[in-house]
Amino acid sequence: MLFHVRMDVHVPYGADSNHIDKLRLDEKARAQQLPCDGTWRHLWRIVGEYANISIFDVESSDKLHEILTSLPLFPFMQIKVTPLCRHPSAIASDSD
Amino acid sequence: MLFHVRMDVHVPYGADSNHIDKLRLDEKARAQQLPCDGTWRHLWRIVGEYANISIFDVESSDKLHEILTSLPLFPFMQIKVTPLCRHPSAIASDSD
Amino acid sequence: MLFHVRMDVHVPYGADSNHIDKLRLDEKARAQQLPCDGTWRHLWRIVGEYANISIFDVESSDKLHEILTSLPLFPFMQIKVTPLCRHPSAIASDSD
Amino acid sequence: MLFHVRMDVHVPYGADSNHIDKLRLDEKARAQQLPCDGTWRHLWRIVGEYANISIFDVESSDKLHEILTSLPLFPFMQIKVTPLCRHPSAIASDSD
Amino acid sequence: MLFHVRMDVHVPYGADSNHIDKLRLDEKARAQQLPCDGTWRHLWRIVGEYANISIFDVESSDKLHEILTSLPLFPFMQIKVTPLCRHPSAIASDSD
Amino acid sequence: MLFHVRMDVHVPYGADSNHIDKLRLDEKARAQQLPCDGTWRHLWRIVGEYANISIFDVESSDKLHEILTSLPLFPFMQIKVTPLCRHPSAIASDSD
Amino acid sequence: MLFHVRMDVHVPYGADSNHIDKLRLDEKARAQQLPCDGTWRHLWRIVGEYANISIFDVESSDKLHEILTSLPLFPFMQIKVTPLCRHPSAIASDSD
Amino acid sequence: MLFHVRMDVHVPYGADSNHIDKLRLDEKARAQQLPCDGTWRHLWRIVGEYANISIFDVESSDKLHEILTSLPLFPFMQIKVTPLCRHPSAIASDSD
Amino acid sequence: MLFHVRMDVHVPYGADSNHIDKLRLDEKARAQQLPCDGTWRHLWRIVGEYANISIFDVESSDKLHEILTSLPLFPFMQIKVTPLCRHPSAIASDSD
Amino acid sequence: MLFHVRMDVHVPYGADSNHIDKLRLDEKARAQQLPCDGTWRHLWRIVGEYANISIFDVESSDKLHEILTSLPLFPFMQIKVTPLCRHPSAIASDSD
Repeated sequence: MLFHVRMDVHVPYGADSNHIDKLRLDEKARAQQLPCDGTWRHLWRIVGEYANISIFDVESSDKLHEILTSLPLFPFMQIKVTPLCRHPSAIASDSD
Repeated sequence: MLFHVRMDVHVPYGADSNHIDKLRLDEKARAQQLPCDGTWRHLWRIVGEYANISIFDVESSDKLHEILTSLPLFPFMQIKVTPLCRHPSAIASDSD
Repeated sequence: MLFHVRMDVHVPYGADSNHIDKLRLDEKARAQQLPCDGTWRHLWRIVGEYANISIFDVESSDKLHEILTSLPLFPFMQIKVTPLCRHPSAIASDSD
Repeated sequence: MLFHVRMDVHVPYGADSNHIDKLRLDEKARAQQLPCDGTWRHLWRIVGEYANISIFDVESSDKLHEILTSLPLFPFMQIKVTPLCRHPSAIASDSD
Repeated sequence: MLFHVRMDVHVPYGADSNHIDKLRLDEKARAQQLPCDGTWRHLWRIVGEYANISIFDVESSDKLHEILTSLPLFPFMQIKVTPLCRHPSAIASDSD
Repeated sequence: MLFHVRMDVHVPYGADSNHIDKLRLDEKARAQQLPCDGTWRHLWRIVGEYANISIFDVESSDKLHEILTSLPLFPFMQIKVTPLCRHPSAIASDSD
Repeated sequence: MLFHVRMDVHVPYGADSNHIDKLRLDEKARAQQLPCDGTWRHLWRIVGEYANISIFDVESSDKLHEILTSLPLFPFMQIKVTPLCRHPSAIASDSD
Repeated sequence: MLFHVRMDVHVPYGADSNHIDKLRLDEKARAQQLPCDGTWRHLWRIVGEYANISIFDVESSDKLHEILTSLPLFPFMQIKVTPLCRHPSAIASDSD
Repeated sequence: MLFHVRMDVHVPYGADSNHIDKLRLDEKARAQQLPCDGTWRHLWRIVGEYANISIFDVESSDKLHEILTSLPLFPFMQIKVTPLCRHPSAIASDSD
Repeated sequence: MLFHVRMDVHVPYGADSNHIDKLRLDEKARAQQLPCDGTWRHLWRIVGEYANISIFDVESSDKLHEILTSLPLFPFMQIKVTPLCRHPSAIASDSD
């Protein structure tokens, strides 16, 4: 099942930079690990913002919640989830 | 170059239904024709709304404007374009 | 899978009242028919507004889209879907 | 009487983590205790957010205010209350 | 139980003026009739707008919904209901 | 002259709790003192929020500004003032 | 007493142009008549919009409501009233 | 040339009170000095808010920017500038 | 003096197409005529929208208002004007 | 390819002033360096705000993201990017 997820990251001024840097590395590791199993199908940056847009393909909403809340930077993210469904005009197989 | 495009369709009450139906068929034909050349990479419906989210891969902003304004239902659409760029954590080739 | 759905109904001034009345009857019939199979788990009115809040339990987002867009009053509705998941503190079985 | 309540939790960066963890445990204990008497009828998480949606069944607005403001995490919550009423199309008894 | 209700009236251009005038008279008659039983405790106009703010004292949310949706101008109103409760610092008896 | 005033209180995390508690007591004392002379005609809490709605009856806007800015919690309040006037359908004398 | 008033005019497409032209002339006549007695102290256009900002000096909110709702173009206006008071740093007498 | 300027002041909690008090005195001195040359034509407080509305008469936008950014409290202000022009119905000379 | 102007065009459904087409031609003629004297310095389309962003260089706000309100499509435009001033880091002469 | 970029700068209270001053100098140096190659075509200040509007001419969205995120003050900026395209009515060559 497909979900559109926008994540905006806001690191508060004064946050310990070593701690944040570590979280970013963890985040990157986790993001690169998830797409391998086809769950995190797409991931793009929004130009000029510390934000991204993703398409997730998960078996359930519970699974998506588990993935998102386990992201290392989750405490600094504002997340907006929008459920999607197939469009009859789409023919590219990766949009299934 | 990648752009995220959200289109919301608002058909005014009282619009000639035959005319609108024809526009919808034209729209569908055009949407199915464009993805063939890789321009309209993804197309999803937003659940419960007469709206969709697309990812376009075009050579220039001018080209995207030309495509969007030539859609048969364009006069009834509210469109929001967000430029995207590659995310270093994305590995799926279809997100290039 | 659980979804929170808010529907706001806006009937345009000048709409044919007989037609709208028929749509309302169809809507009511459909709303009463769906809960029987457990799909439309909850349905409440928002006090003072021509709007309601529902909880749907569906197998997929595609199924929810099919149900919502087939509602007789859909063309006059503004719909907002929010995916939900179980809360560990909830113990009432009807919230599964 | 039924009320729809959305709670968004915002824990400020730098808050004492031991204190917050204790508040979360207290919150969980309180949330699990209340539904037993039928007051806190439903409780769902919003996917991807530190937020939840509840349905309360209380005898008065004063009672609801007392419950909400006594939640351990109340100082970190943004709360929005919407009064509901029965929908004639709802037949499930738990929506009374 | 106390509710704060803001009503904004929007009469569409082109509406039959005789019909609207009749609705306004009906509305006035109904508004003057309700306060007698203490239900419609306060009613004020917002300066410069075709809008008003009311305080209702009703036994239930269902009762309030019944009153508001039966107002002759209801189809032309945007209504926002906010539940209130007693403030410990208020001593005037009419705020009970 | 009547004014509708909504006050939302936001106490910043980390504020000295003794100082805030003293301000709350001062606030309560002041709120209870003002209604005696008929200035602060009504005062209600908004259910589930640290916010209230008041109706002030003052001789001038300058007087209202003086009252509001002298409230002990004023530095932590977001205030929205809406001028009201009598509604011809209101008959309760306390709404004059 | 001073009030800041912003008026935005929206004439619906299809409105009878002769009727609207007459209302505009009436509006102009009324606007020119009121400032003579010092009530309508200031009147400016907002650049690029069919909107204006005024400062009214009236004895009461009721009087302001009477003036605004009697403007010929009132049915086509969206009006926002903000109460003002003297600023201690202002020394120009016309700002009293 | 006339500009409408709204300034909202937000002093962060924890700011050094002596420093802020000095800025306020500087601000007052500056505000009282400017109107003498006709630049800062009007200055009003918004009732119940730490905010004001001003009308500036300056020779250029650059001059206005220079004035506003040199205000002692500028770092704590949210400022919104709206260009105005003469309204043909205004006859008071101070609105030129 | 420099102003940033965003214009959004909304042609109502049902508007006489011949009349609108004529307005568009007039608009184009007028837009092409103005830049010649350096007033309408820049004009860009917003991708995917029936909207544009312009930079005007005018001697006064009154002049800008006169230009904008005389545009043939003005009755169908929502216009937002933002005053600009030179940025010390800009070196391109066309940004003066 | 042309992009409209609005940058709003928010320096948090309590930020180390020496550090911020250094960032501002770096920012200025970088802004003055970029326009030389035609990338940062225009740069204007918004009157009364710590914000600016720019027009960038870049070969790709990726390039723009690289420029914007490398600005020294980027961590304190809220940035909004809008893709533009040529308007057929524009004749000034610098708007290409």
